[in-house]
Parts: sequence; C-alpha cells; structure tokens
Amino acid sequence: MLNEKNVRLGKVRSSIRELFEYGKKRKAEIGEENVYDFSIGNPSVPAPEAVKNALISVLENTDPVALHGYTSAQGDPETRKVLADYTNSRFGTALTAECFYLTCGAAASLTITLGALLNAGDEVITVAPFFPEYRVFTEHAGGRLVPVRAAEDTFAPDLAAIERAITPATKAVLINSPNNPSGVVYSDGDLKALAALLEKYSEKFGEPIYLISDEPYRELVFDKDIAVPYVMNYYDRSVVCYSYSKSLSLPGERIGYIAVNNKMAEFSEVYAGICGAGRSLGFVCAPALFQQLIKRVYNLTADISVYKANRDRLYSKLVEFGYTVVKPNGAFYMFVKSPEPDAKAFCERAKGYELLIVAGDDFGADGYVRISYCVSPELIERALPSFEKLMKSYK
Amino acid sequence: MLNEKNVRLGKVRSSIRELFEYGKKRKAEIGEENVYDFSIGNPSVPAPEAVKNALISVLENTDPVALHGYTSAQGDPETRKVLADYTNSRFGTALTAECFYLTCGAAASLTITLGALLNAGDEVITVAPFFPEYRVFTEHAGGRLVPVRAAEDTFAPDLAAIERAITPATKAVLINSPNNPSGVVYSDGDLKALAALLEKYSEKFGEPIYLISDEPYRELVFDKDIAVPYVMNYYDRSVVCYSYSKSLSLPGERIGYIAVNNKMAEFSEVYAGICGAGRSLGFVCAPALFQQLIKRVYNLTADISVYKANRDRLYSKLVEFGYTVVKPNGAFYMFVKSPEPDAKAFCERAKGYELLIVAGDDFGADGYVRISYCVSPELIERALPSFEKLMKSYK
Repeated sequence: MLNEKNVRLGKVRSSIRELFEYGKKRKAEIGEENVYDFSIGNPSVPAPEAVKNALISVLENTDPVALHGYTSAQGDPETRKVLADYTNSRFGTALTAECFYLTCGAAASLTITLGALLNAGDEVITVAPFFPEYRVFTEHAGGRLVPVRAAEDTFAPDLAAIERAITPATKAVLINSPNNPSGVVYSDGDLKALAALLEKYSEKFGEPIYLISDEPYRELVFDKDIAVPYVMNYYDRSVVCYSYSKSLSLPGERIGYIAVNNKMAEFSEVYAGICGAGRSLGFVCAPALFQQLIKRVYNLTADISVYKANRDRLYSKLVEFGYTVVKPNGAFYMFVKSPEPDAKAFCERAKGYELLIVAGDDFGADGYVRISYCVSPELIERALPSFEKLMKSYK
Repeated sequence: MLNEKNVRLGKVRSSIRELFEYGKKRKAEIGEENVYDFSIGNPSVPAPEAVKNALISVLENTDPVALHGYTSAQGDPETRKVLADYTNSRFGTALTAECFYLTCGAAASLTITLGALLNAGDEVITVAPFFPEYRVFTEHAGGRLVPVRAAEDTFAPDLAAIERAITPATKAVLINSPNNPSGVVYSDGDLKALAALLEKYSEKFGEPIYLISDEPYRELVFDKDIAVPYVMNYYDRSVVCYSYSKSLSLPGERIGYIAVNNKMAEFSEVYAGICGAGRSLGFVCAPALFQQLIKRVYNLTADISVYKANRDRLYSKLVEFGYTVVKPNGAFYMFVKSPEPDAKAFCERAKGYELLIVAGDDFGADGYVRISYCVSPELIERALPSFEKLMKSYK
C-alpha cells in the first residue's frame, strides 16, 4: 500500500490542467492564434532587466563557494535585514531580520506556516473563492479547510459568515488579497472587522487564532486610490506569506518569504515552529543565488502596466456585452458570473468559441468563471468577438 | 497550542550546530587560523567554471518569461530526457524522461519519496551511522526510522542484522553510499545480498519493500577500483534520490532529482505518489534556472581531487598517530573510533587542542567521531600536531 492520498493527488488532474491539455490539442488543430487561452495564471510580462543584470553581476563578482553554499535555514542575514528595513519603511512596522524566513516561494511559505501552527483536527477558515491548493496544504498539515463564501456582490469577506464558522478548533484564518481568483483587494474596514473578530474569539476560547495573509499579488494593484492594507498593522497574531513569483515574474525560481509579526507574545515559539516545519518538510534553504538577487531588487516589480491595460479593456467590453463582473482592483484575474447556473456548462460552451476559461467550482465558488488576463493585449482584442457571441448565445 | 513537534525541531540545536557556534566564538578569540574546524559538510571546492558560464549564457540568451516561468511539477522535459539518456549510458538502465522528477535537492527528494511510499506506522530501516535528518523526514511522513548498526570493522551493511529488523511494517530500506558519515561505498556483493533479502520478505509478507538510495555523494569516489553500484540494476523496487549539492558544489541552490525504476510493476502508482507528495509538501517545481543549468552540465563535477588528497594525507597520519579508522572510499568524511568509549567526552577533549569534530552519537553510532575533510589542505597540515597530541593524551 502506497500513500493513497498522495497517489490520488498526483493522478487527479485539476480542471485547469485538463483545459491546458485541451488547449494544446486545439492549438495544434486550428493554430495557436485562434485559441483564446485565459486559463493560466503565468506572468506574461518579463522579469525586469535589472533581475538579469543583478544575477549576472552576482555570478561574476562573488566567490562561488560562498555564493552557492548553504545559507542558514532562515536565509541570508543581510537579505533578511534588507527586507525588514524595506517593510518597516513601507508599512511602519518595527520588524527585524529575525522576523523573516526566506522560502522556496508562496506554496512553501504556506506549507511551512501551516506546519508550524496546526495540530491534527485544527480548522483553517478561508474566504471562497480561494486558491484550490489551500485545501491540499491544510490537509497535509493535519487540518481541515473551512471555506466561507465571500459577499456575493463584492467578493469582500463576509464577516458575519466568518463569525458563524469560528469554532474552538479554529486555528487560523487564511486570506489572500489581492485575491486569486476574484482580483478583489480587502479594505481597511474589512481588516479592522476581521481583526476584531479574531481578538474576540481568541479571548473567548482562550486559544489564539492566527491570521495568515497570502500575498503573492501584493504589488499587482492598478488604481491609485487602492492600497493593500498591511495585516501586521491590524492584528498582532499575523503571519505574511510572500512570493516574488508575480511581482518580479519569477514563478519558476521559487523565492519568497514568511514574515512573522513580532508584536505577538508567542513570537519566538511561532518562529521556531516555522524553522522546525521547514526542516521536516525538506526545505533546507531558499535558492542561494535568488536570495542574493532579492537583496538587490527587493523594491522593483515587473512592468505591471500591461495587466492594468488588459483589465480596463476586458472589463469594459465584458460589461458592454452584458456580463456581470466585479471590477478587480488587483492580481490578474477577473471573476465573472456565469450566464447559466452551471459554470462548468458555460465553460464547455465557451470552448465552442475557442475561449478557454475556468469554472469557479474549483475555487469553491460555483456559478462563476475565472478569466486570467495575464496575456498579450492582442489576444484580448482577438478574443473580444468570441466573448460577445458567447453572451449572445444566451439571449 | 502550536505544533509542538515542529517548535521543538526548530529550537533544538544539533550538536553540529552547537559546535558551529562554539567555533565562531573561539575563532574570534584566538584567530580563525588557529581553530581546526572539521565539523561541517559544506563543499570547499568551487563549482566548475562551466557552471558560471552556463548560467550567464542562459540568462543572456533565453526569453525571461520562458526561462523564469513555472515548469511542470515534474520538471523541464528536456532536462529529464538528458538525465535519462545519461543514466542509461552510464548504468545500462532503460529509463525515460518520465522516470525523473526534478527536486529542490536531496532533502526534498527524500521527503517527497517518503511521502509517496509511507502510511502511518510504516517502518524505514536504515544503516547506522546515518544522516540524522533521516529520522525527521521519516517521522514527518508518519513512519518510524529503524536504524540497524553497520558491521563494526567495515561499516558495510550488516545483512543478518537487517534481516532481523524486517517486520511486516517495513516499507523501505534507506541506504546512503558513499556514506555520510563513514565514507564507505557499498559493494556489488552488499547490494546483491540486500536485494535478495528484500525480494524474499516482499514475497513473504505480500507487501513490497522499497529500496531508497540517497546519492548526494555518488560522484565523490577516489579510487579507480571502486565503483558505486547502481541500485536499479540490483532491485526493481528502487528509487534513487540525487542531488547536485556536492558533485557540483551547489548546496545552497537546491537542485536534485528523484529517479523511479521503471522495472517495478507499480511504477506509475509510485510516480503519481511522488507527484502528489511534492504537491502537498509545497514544492511547486525545482528552481527553473538551475533546471536549465543541469541540462547543460549534467556530466561535470567540481574538482574533487582536493578531497582525495585530503583523505590520503589525513588517513595516513591518523593511522600513524594510532587512531583506528576505516579508510573511506568516498564522500568527504572519515569516521574515527574514539579512544575512549564516550565519543562526546573525546570531542570535548579535542576542543582543548582546538579541534572541532562531531560525536557519532548524532549519527546513531556511539563510540565514533566524524571528521569532515572538505577543508583546505593547509588546514589539515596545521591541525596534524593537534591530532597527534590529542591521541598522546590517552597514552
């Protein structure tokens, strides 16, 4: 008997993956330019030129034994100091290098954080729609994911529904803002209310409830009046899971970090748990060359103006065609109401117009579809007539 | 309540780490050149120049969106094809790209493989002395590590003792050759006998027992007449966990692979379990730039002649001074018999001669110490008088 759970996880194809395979086949049949693939969340803009220059400079000017050697499990102390200073200057926190733990990307940040916090049977509340791997990661740590549907009209967290979901087994609330797949950014008011709720129930049950903030899309916001509030300024028992995958367009390189709020009383226990979880999961350290890179380009992003232009164009046209869309403020996804109750049927029909979009069912929100607009502006232009015809087919 | 096991793992300092901290302090007191640090297994020779050149060439000549993008979880298909061809040409196997799964280094290879194979309560037999994290990784996967002491005079696996340790709960035997910390290379005869044993008990209990071969030191062998036999040629239910940390001196970059023997009947189940375990542990893919590197330098190693010269010099002098040492054929460790039964007391006494060496207790073999000779030849020369005085103090 192998580990049946992992065998199943390895065999099951997500519907995104199914669609990817379908797309490959379809592109071979009718030509790449005639298939409108909005299914994948892969950055479409290159890493900034400064990334290449910094990597080459580090390779040319550093002793290879030191450069490619093990770092401590927590990561290069200088990189962590730079991140602490930068975070403090942006958000008014008082973090130190010792609050940071460099990781192999956001997925690692999450599995390590959950490994530190959870015991068997603990519950993790998240807001649906949510990134499907949250369930895999939570269950690996012995916990149970409890999705709570967001407010229907705004996709903001539904505080009353979250309150109803809190039990003595609630160990953490896991949020993701800007959100995959809705693109919604949680407001100052959302975070204040959520923090108050967690304070209340931590006290009521005599057991801390942690706030985990998954922030790979933090830098991808498109409107001047929209800020992404920093959770550490709202709630002491908070942990930020960050990744450079989207902000620097480096998803394959696996570099990110965990930042633990030093305002929580049990800070050193939580940080030790993170070190222990990283160790037992088999993460020895984050890739050393990319630790050196981050020290040099921590304050840069890829050119995200393409995503904003895509959002504006696609949003205005979809609304014009009669779709119901909550305007996304960030990330590179749009969550669109399916014109029929069964979003999977809608996605199937979309294929008839060569449109590849993903049903919200996988994200814990049926009746919606996710459109990834991290694509070329030309693809959007070519696809618009199909979106229009698709909607007309429902009239 | 946090996860107490991970909090403890994060807090506990291994004796290697303790010694590292002591060494730092001592070097500050009496000068770096006067402390003889043989405690750390960090490669002391640089990555080959070809590594730097290949990395820079890839960075300069590849579209960054493609270069830094996600690969499939299994890894770049071309890199895996190169590895399959290379392995087949070296060892006469008939592997395909689909047998390979690229990982973030040997630790990841092991946690993923154990995650695929083990269910709660399963036992993993290993040969002591062994790398201490084997216990952490096995327990994380829900299993129990069962160390079986090697033959006292050779550190070869003691087949009779392994046979006595096999139970119906035995899921795998985990070997490491060339061995950390003994430097011993398992022979053709060792592997034949081990394979026969595993065949016998797999049949007897009606449940497969797998052979996991942890091979970060495969390329580090120093004698022309010594070959490291390839486990897949001995046993169908075998999995190789490889890393480039030592062979290419890239320990901080986290790049390695798992190769699953396609001769086993349940190959696709095991491979699916590996994909699932990688996913649930939070490994999205191996660092993309280093996947591209491996495709180009898969057949190179760092200049390991320094390790051989160090071994020869240190071994001959230690024997001359009266130490009992099994001559290591590979890796960069020597496992030396403590002149007193308590190896920890011996290591403490060694500190008085400014020698930093690690007690074998951590490796599941009391009465011995590990000497890491991945150091400069000059350090060995400076340290020799101390090794001599240390032994004389016991006369």
